[in-house]
Amino acid sequence: MKCRSCGQPAIINMRQHKLALCRAHFLDWLPAQTERFIRHYKMFTPGDKILVAVSGGKDSLSLWDMLTRLGYPADGVYISLGIDGAPGSGLHYSEESRRLTEQFALARSLRLHVVDLAASYGAGIPDLAQRTRRGHDKPCSVCGLVKRYLMNRVAREGGYTVLATGHNLDDEAAVLMQNTLTWSADYLMRQSPVLPATGSGLVRKVKPVCRVYEREMAAYALASGIEYIYDECPYAVGSNTLWYKEILNQMEEKRPGLKLQYYLGFLQAREAGLFAPAAEDAAELHTCVTCGQPTVAPGQCSFCRLWEKAPPAENG
Amino acid sequence: MKCRSCGQPAIINMRQHKLALCRAHFLDWLPAQTERFIRHYKMFTPGDKILVAVSGGKDSLSLWDMLTRLGYPADGVYISLGIDGAPGSGLHYSEESRRLTEQFALARSLRLHVVDLAASYGAGIPDLAQRTRRGHDKPCSVCGLVKRYLMNRVAREGGYTVLATGHNLDDEAAVLMQNTLTWSADYLMRQSPVLPATGSGLVRKVKPVCRVYEREMAAYALASGIEYIYDECPYAVGSNTLWYKEILNQMEEKRPGLKLQYYLGFLQAREAGLFAPAAEDAAELHTCVTCGQPTVAPGQCSFCRLWEKAPPAENG
Repeated sequence: MKCRSCGQPAIINMRQHKLALCRAHFLDWLPAQTERFIRHYKMFTPGDKILVAVSGGKDSLSLWDMLTRLGYPADGVYISLGIDGAPGSGLHYSEESRRLTEQFALARSLRLHVVDLAASYGAGIPDLAQRTRRGHDKPCSVCGLVKRYLMNRVAREGGYTVLATGHNLDDEAAVLMQNTLTWSADYLMRQSPVLPATGSGLVRKVKPVCRVYEREMAAYALASGIEYIYDECPYAVGSNTLWYKEILNQMEEKRPGLKLQYYLGFLQAREAGLFAPAAEDAAELHTCVTCGQPTVAPGQCSFCRLWEKAPPAENG
Repeated sequence: MKCRSCGQPAIINMRQHKLALCRAHFLDWLPAQTERFIRHYKMFTPGDKILVAVSGGKDSLSLWDMLTRLGYPADGVYISLGIDGAPGSGLHYSEESRRLTEQFALARSLRLHVVDLAASYGAGIPDLAQRTRRGHDKPCSVCGLVKRYLMNRVAREGGYTVLATGHNLDDEAAVLMQNTLTWSADYLMRQSPVLPATGSGLVRKVKPVCRVYEREMAAYALASGIEYIYDECPYAVGSNTLWYKEILNQMEEKRPGLKLQYYLGFLQAREAGLFAPAAEDAAELHTCVTCGQPTVAPGQCSFCRLWEKAPPAENG
């Protein structure tokens, strides 16, 4: 297989685009594609103050790398969740992903905000989930809540105008399949490359690589020499999302381009008015009486309520 | 596994309903369920004149059997499509399915209309598809067109008020998956247990077993001693629909009830207003200048145009 641009040996063949590229041309092509999506969905301009949510994985580090290459000044935020691997596995998931993230930022002189959950609030995710008795099987819902809260808070307090996440096409297609299996109107209306800011304190959220295949993100990280954490979060193993990804991969195998067509077709059909506008679309948010951050219901936000159920002092 | 009703050995365990039943209770239960759906979706009442589209397969024959048991007077229509198996296979698909359908009707003294495509119009489906050069690979789209036309015509000319088809849950879930992978607004709006009659000559179409698993339909046919054609139509082998069915079966295996939840959730979300009403919803139909049957575009209907492209005389 030869690079379409220069005829040198290709490092990747993207069947869905009928396109094979060598290392150098792939490392040009993917950021250029990303730039196209940033403009197409009006995600941000170089005048924006951009914060990238980084986990130490291939997607978020590659995204941060591409934004920098494209001339978008972007800082990072890493949330240390206090997650290890299975006992005896020797995996220190959070420690290792933090080390890789800090190493990435340092090597490129990029600014990185780190929030250490246990140090700042008194408990990491597994402990917090157990103490609040949320997530009997898995702490994933607690983790999602905590990350959404902290990412928005760091973005807001740092004066950032936009928060970018590394969700790739495989992530989005899997979530879409999940949303069509449950037919959740709310989720179908909100699954978007851009969620606008709200006056009540939610920073604009964007997904610049939502049209990039996971395998292309991994190829980009490898080809750029980015060291990232290979392991999935130990709690993600056996998760719904991974299961949907496997099913979609199986479908993609038979029909190259299916995942992209599925996700893009959805965005286009919604844009063309397939769905009825939700009545609650412009629901006003409230301000949490404890922390001052935005919250759906009046009173205390769900993040503060979570910590009230798990007093940070002695049990940690 | 014991029957929940009587404690005798069960012949079927329906994990999605957490229900195991013996032969006698299953043969009561499935028609009762079907009756529930007929009422719930207001498909028809005993005052209606019902025509069942029968193919000789398990779904349509079991449906006809159940309607009779439930006290709905229903006649049948069988369309002989002139389809054999692969050369040398010894399968005479249409002949065999016609024989089984006629035997079924005769044994129960039910009235059956038979349309023999080759005898009445000059060619069976494979020949027609070839001569009109529609469907290079497969004649399935020609076949669909011909069946929809003839079923409606027989229903209309016989004064039937409703046309019932044997589409089961697996059929509907597979079509739904296909419709969400292409995000066809038209198809998503029209996929329904009931399509109302139009003033311009389309008879009401209903799917009384759209919430019954394929495996339950097969169990019903076996338990009632209905002889049906086991083979799929030879052209269906390798089709998209069968592929989607396999994927959904794999998902159902892991999550019993997934197919039902998927299809029902869709119907409920649409009922609750998830989709925007289509502008073209009430488009007026026209009357075909050749045959007088309803047609979307003015002039000749697509059935008549098909036969004009394939003169019935000498080539047959």
